[in-house]
Amino acid sequence: MFITRVRVRFHEIDRAGIAYFARSFQYCHETFEDMLARALDVDLERFFRESTWMLPLVHAESDYRMPIVLGQDLRIELKIARVGKTSVHFAYRIIGEPDGVERGKVTLVHSCVERQGFITRPLPDELIAGFKALGLIPPEVRRKD
Amino acid sequence: MFITRVRVRFHEIDRAGIAYFARSFQYCHETFEDMLARALDVDLERFFRESTWMLPLVHAESDYRMPIVLGQDLRIELKIARVGKTSVHFAYRIIGEPDGVERGKVTLVHSCVERQGFITRPLPDELIAGFKALGLIPPEVRRKD
Amino acid sequence: MFITRVRVRFHEIDRAGIAYFARSFQYCHETFEDMLARALDVDLERFFRESTWMLPLVHAESDYRMPIVLGQDLRIELKIARVGKTSVHFAYRIIGEPDGVERGKVTLVHSCVERQGFITRPLPDELIAGFKALGLIPPEVRRKD
Amino acid sequence: MFITRVRVRFHEIDRAGIAYFARSFQYCHETFEDMLARALDVDLERFFRESTWMLPLVHAESDYRMPIVLGQDLRIELKIARVGKTSVHFAYRIIGEPDGVERGKVTLVHSCVERQGFITRPLPDELIAGFKALGLIPPEVRRKD
Repeated sequence: MFITRVRVRFHEIDRAGIAYFARSFQYCHETFEDMLARALDVDLERFFRESTWMLPLVHAESDYRMPIVLGQDLRIELKIARVGKTSVHFAYRIIGEPDGVERGKVTLVHSCVERQGFITRPLPDELIAGFKALGLIPPEVRRKD
Repeated sequence: MFITRVRVRFHEIDRAGIAYFARSFQYCHETFEDMLARALDVDLERFFRESTWMLPLVHAESDYRMPIVLGQDLRIELKIARVGKTSVHFAYRIIGEPDGVERGKVTLVHSCVERQGFITRPLPDELIAGFKALGLIPPEVRRKD
Repeated sequence: MFITRVRVRFHEIDRAGIAYFARSFQYCHETFEDMLARALDVDLERFFRESTWMLPLVHAESDYRMPIVLGQDLRIELKIARVGKTSVHFAYRIIGEPDGVERGKVTLVHSCVERQGFITRPLPDELIAGFKALGLIPPEVRRKD
Repeated sequence: MFITRVRVRFHEIDRAGIAYFARSFQYCHETFEDMLARALDVDLERFFRESTWMLPLVHAESDYRMPIVLGQDLRIELKIARVGKTSVHFAYRIIGEPDGVERGKVTLVHSCVERQGFITRPLPDELIAGFKALGLIPPEVRRKD
């Protein structure tokens, strides 16, 4: 499990007075960003400038349990639900702090593509190795699609 | 079907050089906003200030087919996929213009709640009537959950 | 004068129930984007991929007259206040529709730089020509810094 | 001086590959939010639900020194530049970490208004007391406009 924390901000609230629903995706993607930087041991700016592969979203999904309000501190928990040959499924939980109550769940599915032409390609070995180093997949995991 | 159009903006692009994935949810929700204003024949600011009921999201889902780039004109098509007693499922298609190529699909599921306490309640009759007036549900539709 | 129109969206409202103050900058920059595409007669995605020069902000400023609420239709008026050798000052007015009441003013100052290294350089001739073609600067204007 | 830290996120980058200019205002306002919660010793959600006064922006201004890129850690320093009878000027510096290099400066001017009708009113005593408790204004400061 990989965990980050975030505070809900004034501009992230919508006209209904709660965090805009799409913010859940943003919060979880921010956790993904920190995890990716750690898994690859790389500066993200450099990664996006130089990498020959990318991980665009192919599917995103969110379930909402409770409204999230201004100033709420959130803990975002990332787990890998499935690793395919060319894609990876991340499962997130959005949890209030300090109450520990789950506000919602998010699933993000990324596909690996060549930077040139966005052509699907296998997940690179260094990414799999990074997932293992962070304990997000067991050392012996085999990829399959 | 209810249709709106939107142009992809400079600040909506992410570090990968394409529209940030969560923007798809935003674009479709904007279509929902225009549809709601029309269905209820109401000013939205007034609606959110005075209404005793609200329509928070309980589920959101998106599939991505093609990257969306800066300046792209999009047509967003909204259909009602299902009307329950207390919830409504909207199905959206995000289509490039003028090429007509689908970039992605979005599903947004809203639940109806009392403004006070966020307690689930039946969809109000005026909302159902508005959906019918816009041709989004057939005149004879019965609600069921 | 170059004019665009925009509608204030649900997610652009903050916890105080009005459009988040920084949205004014966004609305005006969107007008800039449309103007730039017209001035250069270019697709913006292609411009940002291929251009050897860019126009980053060096200064931004906004005065707020009246709160802007959800669903408000706005007319954004862009004028060029000053053209220097290496920079250009745009003056914007944010006006409610249909009431015609000014909500605020924005000034955006862009500097011209080489894409490589962000080194200041003179405004390119094709940009000046585009401003003239749109009537944003008089045909005889001379640049000075 | 009141200080917060923030990391630049993937979705905050624009098509030019750097942090969108209006993000500077957002980062500084987030510092303001944390400062306000501390100065009033209050939960912000409760403050915006119950307070009889508010602090809308009347002016915002930013100078840009250096592009800010993805993943950059920033330190935001807030100082009070001036306290008037009905308004307060905050001066912010946006500084890279760990390099210590200033990326830009922001000024935000807030006016105090009654929640009902947005009518200008004097800054409340509890706010002035909070600024003093945080060391943002000297204990003996007198307000003037």
